[in-house]
Amino acid sequence: MRTTSIREAYNNVRKYTEHICEPLETEDYVPQPIDFVSPPKWHLAHSTWFFETFILKNFLPGYQVYDPDFNYLFNSYYNNVGERTLRTDRGNVTRPTTKAVYAYRQHVDRCMDELLETLSDENALKLVELGLHHEQQHQELMVTDIKYILGHNPLFPVYKAGHNLIDSANTETGFVKIQEGVYDIGHLGDGFCFDNELGRHKVYLHEFEITKSLVTNGEFLEFMESGGYEDFNLWLDEGWSWVNSNRVNSPMYWHKIGGEWHYYTLAGLQKVNPNAILSHISFFEASAFAQWKGMRIPTEFEWEVAAVNLDWGKRWEWTNSAYLPYPGFTKAPGAVGEYNGKFMINQMVLRGASVGTSPEHSRKTYRNFFHAQERWQYTGIRLVK
Amino acid sequence: MRTTSIREAYNNVRKYTEHICEPLETEDYVPQPIDFVSPPKWHLAHSTWFFETFILKNFLPGYQVYDPDFNYLFNSYYNNVGERTLRTDRGNVTRPTTKAVYAYRQHVDRCMDELLETLSDENALKLVELGLHHEQQHQELMVTDIKYILGHNPLFPVYKAGHNLIDSANTETGFVKIQEGVYDIGHLGDGFCFDNELGRHKVYLHEFEITKSLVTNGEFLEFMESGGYEDFNLWLDEGWSWVNSNRVNSPMYWHKIGGEWHYYTLAGLQKVNPNAILSHISFFEASAFAQWKGMRIPTEFEWEVAAVNLDWGKRWEWTNSAYLPYPGFTKAPGAVGEYNGKFMINQMVLRGASVGTSPEHSRKTYRNFFHAQERWQYTGIRLVK
Amino acid sequence: MRTTSIREAYNNVRKYTEHICEPLETEDYVPQPIDFVSPPKWHLAHSTWFFETFILKNFLPGYQVYDPDFNYLFNSYYNNVGERTLRTDRGNVTRPTTKAVYAYRQHVDRCMDELLETLSDENALKLVELGLHHEQQHQELMVTDIKYILGHNPLFPVYKAGHNLIDSANTETGFVKIQEGVYDIGHLGDGFCFDNELGRHKVYLHEFEITKSLVTNGEFLEFMESGGYEDFNLWLDEGWSWVNSNRVNSPMYWHKIGGEWHYYTLAGLQKVNPNAILSHISFFEASAFAQWKGMRIPTEFEWEVAAVNLDWGKRWEWTNSAYLPYPGFTKAPGAVGEYNGKFMINQMVLRGASVGTSPEHSRKTYRNFFHAQERWQYTGIRLVK
Amino acid sequence: MRTTSIREAYNNVRKYTEHICEPLETEDYVPQPIDFVSPPKWHLAHSTWFFETFILKNFLPGYQVYDPDFNYLFNSYYNNVGERTLRTDRGNVTRPTTKAVYAYRQHVDRCMDELLETLSDENALKLVELGLHHEQQHQELMVTDIKYILGHNPLFPVYKAGHNLIDSANTETGFVKIQEGVYDIGHLGDGFCFDNELGRHKVYLHEFEITKSLVTNGEFLEFMESGGYEDFNLWLDEGWSWVNSNRVNSPMYWHKIGGEWHYYTLAGLQKVNPNAILSHISFFEASAFAQWKGMRIPTEFEWEVAAVNLDWGKRWEWTNSAYLPYPGFTKAPGAVGEYNGKFMINQMVLRGASVGTSPEHSRKTYRNFFHAQERWQYTGIRLVK
Repeated sequence: MRTTSIREAYNNVRKYTEHICEPLETEDYVPQPIDFVSPPKWHLAHSTWFFETFILKNFLPGYQVYDPDFNYLFNSYYNNVGERTLRTDRGNVTRPTTKAVYAYRQHVDRCMDELLETLSDENALKLVELGLHHEQQHQELMVTDIKYILGHNPLFPVYKAGHNLIDSANTETGFVKIQEGVYDIGHLGDGFCFDNELGRHKVYLHEFEITKSLVTNGEFLEFMESGGYEDFNLWLDEGWSWVNSNRVNSPMYWHKIGGEWHYYTLAGLQKVNPNAILSHISFFEASAFAQWKGMRIPTEFEWEVAAVNLDWGKRWEWTNSAYLPYPGFTKAPGAVGEYNGKFMINQMVLRGASVGTSPEHSRKTYRNFFHAQERWQYTGIRLVK
Repeated sequence: MRTTSIREAYNNVRKYTEHICEPLETEDYVPQPIDFVSPPKWHLAHSTWFFETFILKNFLPGYQVYDPDFNYLFNSYYNNVGERTLRTDRGNVTRPTTKAVYAYRQHVDRCMDELLETLSDENALKLVELGLHHEQQHQELMVTDIKYILGHNPLFPVYKAGHNLIDSANTETGFVKIQEGVYDIGHLGDGFCFDNELGRHKVYLHEFEITKSLVTNGEFLEFMESGGYEDFNLWLDEGWSWVNSNRVNSPMYWHKIGGEWHYYTLAGLQKVNPNAILSHISFFEASAFAQWKGMRIPTEFEWEVAAVNLDWGKRWEWTNSAYLPYPGFTKAPGAVGEYNGKFMINQMVLRGASVGTSPEHSRKTYRNFFHAQERWQYTGIRLVK
Repeated sequence: MRTTSIREAYNNVRKYTEHICEPLETEDYVPQPIDFVSPPKWHLAHSTWFFETFILKNFLPGYQVYDPDFNYLFNSYYNNVGERTLRTDRGNVTRPTTKAVYAYRQHVDRCMDELLETLSDENALKLVELGLHHEQQHQELMVTDIKYILGHNPLFPVYKAGHNLIDSANTETGFVKIQEGVYDIGHLGDGFCFDNELGRHKVYLHEFEITKSLVTNGEFLEFMESGGYEDFNLWLDEGWSWVNSNRVNSPMYWHKIGGEWHYYTLAGLQKVNPNAILSHISFFEASAFAQWKGMRIPTEFEWEVAAVNLDWGKRWEWTNSAYLPYPGFTKAPGAVGEYNGKFMINQMVLRGASVGTSPEHSRKTYRNFFHAQERWQYTGIRLVK
Repeated sequence: MRTTSIREAYNNVRKYTEHICEPLETEDYVPQPIDFVSPPKWHLAHSTWFFETFILKNFLPGYQVYDPDFNYLFNSYYNNVGERTLRTDRGNVTRPTTKAVYAYRQHVDRCMDELLETLSDENALKLVELGLHHEQQHQELMVTDIKYILGHNPLFPVYKAGHNLIDSANTETGFVKIQEGVYDIGHLGDGFCFDNELGRHKVYLHEFEITKSLVTNGEFLEFMESGGYEDFNLWLDEGWSWVNSNRVNSPMYWHKIGGEWHYYTLAGLQKVNPNAILSHISFFEASAFAQWKGMRIPTEFEWEVAAVNLDWGKRWEWTNSAYLPYPGFTKAPGAVGEYNGKFMINQMVLRGASVGTSPEHSRKTYRNFFHAQERWQYTGIRLVK
């Protein structure tokens, strides 16, 4: 990657983060309504801390840390980089203020710009690229975290008029058929990818057919109306516990008002559009829906092989693959190695990309992962028979 | 109470609330770091909601509710006034913004001013007076909640330089002796009081001597250094559990740094002043300290009888009386009756007033109450032998 | 107390404990279905451990501890006597077997008999007396714990046919009136009492009238049918949370079967007898019922003064007094001092005695105490106006 | 399967269950010390209930249910067969007694014997076979549950002298190398298997080498002594939380006494034998140990392919495969379909068999599964490079 283009890329990515925050009020930057949602202010600072900690401190001669307390406050989960605020306490840290965090961003951006002017160290450039992809991941989290914060306010405030995001429809119907055989899986070529995509390897697939379309709200309403949330035979055992202890009876953000289903969107509360693609469902719901349909959801390998023939990208699609290492996966030493490997237990892989994913931040080998009950991302269902 | 003076009182009390908030950043108005601490924004709105709900809606002809959602958002615990946000969710409500809440205050203040110009209904005037005392209670809670929010930030931000509050010392020493006999307890006269102080009645007291001074930090350090937090014989059984499950080894806000005890004050982190009066201790700690001293803490009746001879007012003083009704206590019907009576279980009475108490908001019959483990108020210890 | 009579008393009390267990199957001795219920096997062993630890070890020359592990297993809460099994783990200790525990009892009984033949040390005799009263307290707990274990078995097994216990009715009606004045409270004379009854002292009472009868099932059914469990205005705030989080809608052991209320008794499941005295209610329910009746429950002092004119003894009667020390209360040093004083927080006093109380284990100065939500004892309501 | 042989098999399996219980005292049959451990009495009854519910009720003409309450008490997790006791309440059900449960077994055994004399219905015979394998699974659970109950008693009682079980050593060393290629996975032939083994299918494996020996106590002690439990870099993120919140610093049942490591065995407390194969470790510990060794644990497919060359069977061997359906897996309709499929989330596969596994209850396609933190089974580690 040439220095010019990475300087530009740095500039673009960093600006896009702040663009996401434009419609926010200062108060919106603060809360952490649930452990897995982080305050926007924290995202702004943490993605900046990443560049400061892994790049400026190591590669910009004479760089002085902006504020030593920030390491404690804005480290996310890197045990190798010292103590950090408990994940559940992020919403209580009112200082530094949002304004101070923007100042921190500007400081780091100026230093990064200075560094990128001349940077040629290959390792450093790779870390910058990783930092940008890291920030893009946080951009999508910001979108979904903002939706969570505003969408759980009883007033259902609008983030941006017209910015509904979830009313997209399918463009194709029918099935793609894949023949039995040995296929190659994993990242190929020189482009960027995360370490969990590496180790191009072979898998054997049996013949399957996969839908070209994602499940729509209308189809899911049929499942609901036929008693899908009440029939334990459709559910995984842990899914059935989850439904009952959380009294789940619809996708996240759905509210029955005056006898009609509505959902919260970033453009405010709206009637559920039956033609739009279903969103905000857990793996448990995806699994129960497939069971009800007499079908199943694909493995991540089936998905990757079929993807070339699919119009994917509106939802993160749950697969029936657990998030585990590819053959030959190795963890990088030190903090950067904590990026992916240590999460390879009790999570399910999602493939594709969503309407919340940042531009140029998707590829068909990308392995996203969440716990089976999580549904604040733009998640959806594709079926296999 | 004459209309002129209540208009002026209204004005003063309402301004003082906003004065407390002056040093805050917008972000500080938002969080609820623990269930018993409310966001300053919520206090601002809730005390306003009280006037709107109990006075403007009932006594200002043609008054239109400012925003129907605000009842849901800013009701605290009045079941008689409908649904409300869960107490634990107050910190997630970023909208209405702080600015919008100030606008709500101004609207209600204008309407109240209009109403108070001519108000002569005795019941209405009594409710206004109750509303002002209610707001003064929230003023003290705001001070202690702000201290909690800033004091639990790893950066220990300063609220206001010079505003230490807790460095006050005792002015007197020795004991006051009270003779055995029958004494009158409870509010007397026409001045304002809460319903829990009413029902002037007789109690029989046996002779006792009570200290003129409150326990100091220096005295409490002796307790700590002699192993007070490790000797179960000094503690109530639930206190011993509390010490162990929370690993308590000092008063709240104390931190041992470089071998020396410091405490967080509203003026920032400072060395513990051994001559200053101890603050931020639980009933459990008060009880253990008294046991260690071979003394005890007074009952609320002993305190009230002795108070005329004491220089009280720097700390809320734990008593060994449970918060229970006086003989003849009756609950007012409806929402106002929820003010005190329903909390008369599992809490201990504190008497006096503290450095955080609003001016003109104290009297010797005042019954404050908290759970035995709570210590984010300015609480202290007076001893009896 | 003369040696002859204490030997006989020892013999009687110890036999009565085993008499309570006669109807049990071996399996019934084992479980601890909830933290506050102890296995019968544990009660058998713990009351024996008390005599071994506090008497035989100190006063029988050459006494060898029966099994050093038993101190760990059968100590209840005496921190001064070393480590102990966690209270919540008592139900998992299958060994020593019930048979082995009975052997332990016999061993200690033989040694105690040998000791009591000649014992004249006044302190030792007092400890024996305390041990017998301690065992009688555990006898009542055994009855209520056995009821809890069998009563929570879906099969509702019978403990002993005809042993219903709770179908007793009132013998008197009307009110006793007590004049305003100063009264003496606390234990008087040479008879046995616990340390919490000591410190005879004066209290001032205002005039009141107290019912001669206890509230019946029929009266409580009226409360239930008029929506008592759904009207928050009747409840203390913590009581209302308790009702809602536990979905309480009747006294403990009540089940609506085929449209009719039944209750579990030690003689099995039976129809609720409307004339019988209400039992198994929490302080919260007592308080709500009194509120609904427009009356209140007495303080422990009112109760003690009125008791001479009451036919008390069928239920432990909730009072509106918190369990706190009398003036002049002092804790004995060492383990025996842990008996009462350390529990003087967050519990309410009950006066009287119940159908489950052991013979000769009641007096009008006796102060029983439980947390406000506890109701597995034979608790009832007396009213005051 | 011919009728004669299944009658004999039925007889043998049922007797073996009771043989396991022979050393127990009546009290040992009762408790459930933790949610995942069931009382031996429950296992005895539940395995019997399985035959009564799925076979006698459907295939023995005129069969009358032994006791209708038993369905409620002894159903484990079959939603299709009605309500059941909460899993966490099994330890509180003292009645029916152990004796009554044995009587229930005898009754069902007599009826089954009568039925099996002439049974030729192929579906019925298959269900009997399933019932026997089901009972064998519960036999192993009984062994490990009994170990948990006795092993958590502070007295460490002996189950059976000489019955240590875990002192077995490896018989081979070195590695087995498997070539890259396509392999067949899953059950083959007419013998019994569970539904989760069905769907013989192809997988592609890359070359690997797998150890012939399992990790020993001595090797794990090296890991411990080198700080393995303190180095977060070795652990999965959820594993690190597990270590810290449970303060784990050794395998289950290990106790450091007088400076030396001991473990509880069914023959009592013994010194850890460094040459014996490690047991009672969680997936998290297996994963951390492999990381420390610079190796990894096999997938279940690698294991199955290599198994023909391994001396397996002393420990359940953790694999790095999540428990998920094979291609073509389908759930049988009704209660029998609840056997396996609904647990296919958040559990890891274990392969092999253990010293606790019943005779004739193992095969190389057997897929056992537990949550990553569970370690009361006889679990061990095999490594791959």
